[in-house]
Amino acid sequence: MIKKLLIANRGEIAVRIIRTAKEMGMETVAIYSEADSEALHVQIADEAYCIGPKLSSESYLNFTNIMSVATLTQADAIHPGYGFLSENADFAEICEACNVTFVGPSAYAIQKMGTKDVARETMKEAGVPVVPGSNGIIADEEDGLKVAKQIGFPVIIKATAGGGGKGIRVARNEEELVKGIQVTQNEAEKAFGNPGVYIEKYIEDFRHVEIQVLADNHGNAIHLGERDCTVQRRLQKLIEETPSPAINDAMREKMGEAAVKAAKAVNYSGAGTIEFIFDNKENKFYFMEMNTRIQVEHPVTEMVTGVDLIREQLLIANNEKLSFEQEDITFNGWAMECRINAENPEKDFMPSPGEIKMYLPPGGLGVRVDSAVYPGYKIPPYYDSMIAKLITYGKTREEAIKKMERALDEYIIEGIHTTVPFHRRMMVHPVFKNGDFNTRFLEKYSIMEEE
Amino acid sequence: MIKKLLIANRGEIAVRIIRTAKEMGMETVAIYSEADSEALHVQIADEAYCIGPKLSSESYLNFTNIMSVATLTQADAIHPGYGFLSENADFAEICEACNVTFVGPSAYAIQKMGTKDVARETMKEAGVPVVPGSNGIIADEEDGLKVAKQIGFPVIIKATAGGGGKGIRVARNEEELVKGIQVTQNEAEKAFGNPGVYIEKYIEDFRHVEIQVLADNHGNAIHLGERDCTVQRRLQKLIEETPSPAINDAMREKMGEAAVKAAKAVNYSGAGTIEFIFDNKENKFYFMEMNTRIQVEHPVTEMVTGVDLIREQLLIANNEKLSFEQEDITFNGWAMECRINAENPEKDFMPSPGEIKMYLPPGGLGVRVDSAVYPGYKIPPYYDSMIAKLITYGKTREEAIKKMERALDEYIIEGIHTTVPFHRRMMVHPVFKNGDFNTRFLEKYSIMEEE
Repeated sequence: MIKKLLIANRGEIAVRIIRTAKEMGMETVAIYSEADSEALHVQIADEAYCIGPKLSSESYLNFTNIMSVATLTQADAIHPGYGFLSENADFAEICEACNVTFVGPSAYAIQKMGTKDVARETMKEAGVPVVPGSNGIIADEEDGLKVAKQIGFPVIIKATAGGGGKGIRVARNEEELVKGIQVTQNEAEKAFGNPGVYIEKYIEDFRHVEIQVLADNHGNAIHLGERDCTVQRRLQKLIEETPSPAINDAMREKMGEAAVKAAKAVNYSGAGTIEFIFDNKENKFYFMEMNTRIQVEHPVTEMVTGVDLIREQLLIANNEKLSFEQEDITFNGWAMECRINAENPEKDFMPSPGEIKMYLPPGGLGVRVDSAVYPGYKIPPYYDSMIAKLITYGKTREEAIKKMERALDEYIIEGIHTTVPFHRRMMVHPVFKNGDFNTRFLEKYSIMEEE
Repeated sequence: MIKKLLIANRGEIAVRIIRTAKEMGMETVAIYSEADSEALHVQIADEAYCIGPKLSSESYLNFTNIMSVATLTQADAIHPGYGFLSENADFAEICEACNVTFVGPSAYAIQKMGTKDVARETMKEAGVPVVPGSNGIIADEEDGLKVAKQIGFPVIIKATAGGGGKGIRVARNEEELVKGIQVTQNEAEKAFGNPGVYIEKYIEDFRHVEIQVLADNHGNAIHLGERDCTVQRRLQKLIEETPSPAINDAMREKMGEAAVKAAKAVNYSGAGTIEFIFDNKENKFYFMEMNTRIQVEHPVTEMVTGVDLIREQLLIANNEKLSFEQEDITFNGWAMECRINAENPEKDFMPSPGEIKMYLPPGGLGVRVDSAVYPGYKIPPYYDSMIAKLITYGKTREEAIKKMERALDEYIIEGIHTTVPFHRRMMVHPVFKNGDFNTRFLEKYSIMEEE
């Protein structure tokens, strides 16, 4: 078994990992930047080492310094958490080369899933539904029209070399398509030096539904149901829940099977998440991408399945077989997570770092808090603004929401702005409560404006 | 449904009740003594009223003032919590007279179970096992000898008017018995003006095992399994868990049935607990007493059954039928509770009131904290020293203990002494870990002395 675990991360996920590692009897090694010497993960780990200045590129992303600490402390495994080095195939390879277990999938799986086109192609081959579209780059406008007629309007024209919201254009009819192909090709040529575009059906009304999978090094893979992360602001998830109000048992099984297929297609090992576009109108799902790491929102899955996902990651990294099969996984109750960010929701979610003067998390039955802050803690401005995850559990969605409402009311965080007031309004919003919405919820409803 | 609930208590149980009341959509009214104006329950309730000076007898036990607040605020129900007025039959009657729902059983049930002899007799009639002994007061030494021979030595001689550890004597043979009866009778005559003594079998090696029951006003009663409260110091419970390491499924069923019988024998309504002596050697159980209220240790039952006991109390008080039957109750996993008291375990558990300078409760998967303190809170010296309950949940006893160990390690309470260090040592104590012990655990092992 892993004796000493280095946690190559900070914040709540570092604390989260240290907790389970301790429960499993492992020694823990924390790393921190110069801005994080007072951080909670540093205090609760058995050992802690500074690995560089405040900038992530010089600390939390600093391969050399992190591997030096691993060598120095004789850590036999590294858990990368999420973000930072968690989906860096090079880092996974360096760990292997240094004889340190990387708690995560192989560099091969990370690479396959990390490249959008390769992932889409791999999934198609594996029989996992992808959004209907052209087979790669279209030849010309005529070819584009043929595809568009097959899949139906509206469609989306995407530059194959595009990214970050550039080289993307929606077309709702033939005229827009012909024009759009030309404009996007020109734009892509200029911006990326590659005019290639492809076409996909444009799904406007969709939910973000993802499936948690676990796979070991012995060919076993199972899923742990879905998480609904439809409440997003500029592609940032704000609220997650499981089950999804839109998914029934049959659909869960279908999506779960597809997710397991996806994981097996890349010989996946560890905990991973297949993100799907769930088409509300057609009641169909399409592969969006796979996150080859633990996710922020993993706790909701833990609440309804009783499975400690970090523990499973560590057991799998230790080469153990999964101790359960698909039919052993049962889903009980409803779990919801609100991300508590140090941001001002009244000022367009502007980051609000600074000192937490007073802090008291809520407690009691069905309330879980995953956080790394404390009274007097100074939130540094250099990293992600998420400071806590508030998770509630109830028998039904209504119960989970009611619990969230009262837990948010109890949560005391003074000295900075947080997203608590935003979540409070969400919990009483009639459309959120009825569960029937899509990813455009926050475009449609102005939560922070007085009605 | 109850619209406005007055909580006639303070501390963690007041907070606990307010939480569920809010989740059920009720308005909440807190009461507080002059020493408690800064208390958390005052801050989180919708309304709060001072009902008297610091002494409980003038505030939390002050019928008149409490009923005045109920009338003033138009509260339609009063939850008494535990302690204070929770087992006061007169208070239950006054509530009824004032047309305010008392959240608890009838004055009749409180009275029947509150008187030791009456309760023992009622249980015997109902077929609930009581400790073998004489039928009431013995006539003379000869009668005593006859009973002792029937039930076997050792026996305990108890003055019927005794109490508080007085008028009790153990006899291990005939000689000790004859002498003991004489001495106890004389002593009782002098101390209580009543020489009557009775004889019970003396059980030395026992565990404290209690059964949670729920009964509605429509004749339905069920049990929710046992709680093992064997770790005690001078009859004060310190650690509770469920299931009990000593109880198997068949025994649980037997004890559960006996507990339901006990509840039905007094037309019980609400949440109640039947405490049993569990004879380790004989594998038998005997009625000890019934607590006609919610208990401190109720959360462990909530963790393994998924039933919110405060919610059920409120629904029953609202005259609703139980929404589940015995076969609907399932037991999953293992839950443990450590009572965190403001006491110095290194100095014979001397109370340690004062200001909490720094406070951070533990969090994460499987950890629940029920508390009413916060950073900067000044613990008044006038009330119970329990300031928090730390509850952990795991699939197995070992997991629950491991989680408790790490949660205790994380718990930051600065400025006062607490029982956290005591519990830390308990969690790694080999005898506690193996689960095979009796109520004399703390007499036998010196937990706070360095080995």
